[in-house]
Amino acid sequence: MIRISIDAMGGDHGASVVIPALATVAARRPDIKFIIYGREDAVRPELAKFPTLAAASEFVHCEVAVQMDDKPSQALRHGRGTSSMWNAIEAVKNGQADACISAGNTGALMAMAKFCLRTMANVDRPAIAAIWPNVRAESVVLDVGATIGGDAQQLVDFAILGTGMARALFGIERPTVGLLNVGVEEVKGQEEVKEAGRMLREAGLSSLDYRGFVEGDDIGKGTVDVVVTEGFSGNIALKTAEGTARQIAGYLRAAMGRSLLSRIGYILAKGAFDQLREKMDVSRSNGGVFLGLNGIVVKSHGGADSAGFAAAVELGYDMVRNRLLERVQADIDLFHAHNPQSQATETSKPVVETDEEG
Amino acid sequence: MIRISIDAMGGDHGASVVIPALATVAARRPDIKFIIYGREDAVRPELAKFPTLAAASEFVHCEVAVQMDDKPSQALRHGRGTSSMWNAIEAVKNGQADACISAGNTGALMAMAKFCLRTMANVDRPAIAAIWPNVRAESVVLDVGATIGGDAQQLVDFAILGTGMARALFGIERPTVGLLNVGVEEVKGQEEVKEAGRMLREAGLSSLDYRGFVEGDDIGKGTVDVVVTEGFSGNIALKTAEGTARQIAGYLRAAMGRSLLSRIGYILAKGAFDQLREKMDVSRSNGGVFLGLNGIVVKSHGGADSAGFAAAVELGYDMVRNRLLERVQADIDLFHAHNPQSQATETSKPVVETDEEG
Repeated sequence: MIRISIDAMGGDHGASVVIPALATVAARRPDIKFIIYGREDAVRPELAKFPTLAAASEFVHCEVAVQMDDKPSQALRHGRGTSSMWNAIEAVKNGQADACISAGNTGALMAMAKFCLRTMANVDRPAIAAIWPNVRAESVVLDVGATIGGDAQQLVDFAILGTGMARALFGIERPTVGLLNVGVEEVKGQEEVKEAGRMLREAGLSSLDYRGFVEGDDIGKGTVDVVVTEGFSGNIALKTAEGTARQIAGYLRAAMGRSLLSRIGYILAKGAFDQLREKMDVSRSNGGVFLGLNGIVVKSHGGADSAGFAAAVELGYDMVRNRLLERVQADIDLFHAHNPQSQATETSKPVVETDEEG
Repeated sequence: MIRISIDAMGGDHGASVVIPALATVAARRPDIKFIIYGREDAVRPELAKFPTLAAASEFVHCEVAVQMDDKPSQALRHGRGTSSMWNAIEAVKNGQADACISAGNTGALMAMAKFCLRTMANVDRPAIAAIWPNVRAESVVLDVGATIGGDAQQLVDFAILGTGMARALFGIERPTVGLLNVGVEEVKGQEEVKEAGRMLREAGLSSLDYRGFVEGDDIGKGTVDVVVTEGFSGNIALKTAEGTARQIAGYLRAAMGRSLLSRIGYILAKGAFDQLREKMDVSRSNGGVFLGLNGIVVKSHGGADSAGFAAAVELGYDMVRNRLLERVQADIDLFHAHNPQSQATETSKPVVETDEEG
């Protein structure tokens, strides 16, 4: 039995999207048990619509719901111990759940997850990993926004964490890994990236196949299974790709509506367009995964519909079933055992670094 | 008369693409005069096909052609004084030409341009600016890869340089400017970016309308006319957007070829697809502009066809006609006169920093 804790109050739509998603997943996966955290008045009416789900799940009332525009520090102050988000995370810490899913405020979720779960041994900082569709299949890209900047050791840790996720989700025995850079030649780029490249090459890890530097356009090409970068560039890359996809979809809609012939053409080719829309649909690969913590936390997109939230839940399920945490911790420990000089130089700080208010 | 110096040996196709492009532009713009630099055996046969162009242009034989895979240091060593690239740049320095266009190796072109032209007074570092199509129109994005990293003062300089380019090219009196960041809240992001935001807000420049932080997806939305970032993130954003556009084009082709109906639909809607392709065509807005130097240098895409190279030439022409350099220098001087504490801390170094060989 895989136990998933759910923050039912997050996202733009809250329980009205979350609960139907759980019903869908529960019907597909009989070996899942949900512990649902949220406000009674919001969750109970939704649960009442899905008696099978309600009977098989546990529900815990939480007075506080973290708001989408709460600052991480505010959320921690008001929501620690009391909010559905905090309690869903704490269930993972206490061993009541194997993974936690929330569509809530990313900053608050990361601050609470760091505070409650702490980073894994030998890992300085967590990362947010995205599943990025490419022309070949999908890749893991991290960090897409947990922390700004990162030294060589942190990039190496991200490579190991992302590899573990790619192995768990895509079933690839030895995923290929690239460091995101501005050129593929060894002499170019940020010092941290070059140093991380040297470390990965010299480490010769059996769990990953380091392929060198990759550029922004290699992500969509699917040149490697895991693309590693620090959170500033990673977030900009992710948002830029999303913006470009929306921009092209807009062009396409405008072009197809322009003439009678193109409208007829659109109707005839509708199956093809639907397929294209499905390819470009974020809800199919919805979910940022928090890696590097002592527990699995999946952040669903705030605007996701039920299908999107269900995809995020399945993501958590797959990672638990594939024993992501144990395998990643083993890889991290192996690397650090062979590279004693690269011990974590900074211990994990359980403070909110993303907010000046502290 | 606007005089443009041309490196005819650059790009994947060299003179066979460059010379027809010049013929096209010359026919459209009777007030342009070209000075063409290149190897006699490559350029003369192409020029012979366009007698009107040949009669109205000057041709200068140069023994050396910088190769696309030359390192910047190699190019400077072997090509200084002797190559078509160097001579085309030097023509701008000597006042024989108003702007220089090359489709050659970006690293070599930037190294030579910095060495020969030097940076403008009060500017530390040059930037490469891209013209980025968005759903509204086009925006200027810089730096897309001249230098990695950048302090707050350099970001402010880039804002002023990019504003000048937007004014010259789009005819906007007071372009809107955003700093690329990972969130729009004032508390988030890199320290340099936050500091640059404070400086721009406090400066209250009449030449630009500072709108705060923007995220990756704002580029495609056209939220601002000028998007400012340092070269690492900027290059990753640009390449990621190119990769995403190619990825979606691939999906679209595959989807349209799948069934008989979709193929018929494609034929009927072909006009619309052609229009879409034109929207997504890089050659229409081809050219990275080197800003911050004592002269205008436009880098055409190495793989550009004649239409693409012609677009790059027209870009240089427009900037000369709109007196980009004088206006930008005036803005930079004005800012520094009112902000004496933000004098350039580092003088321009005429060395190749992009290459470890030195």
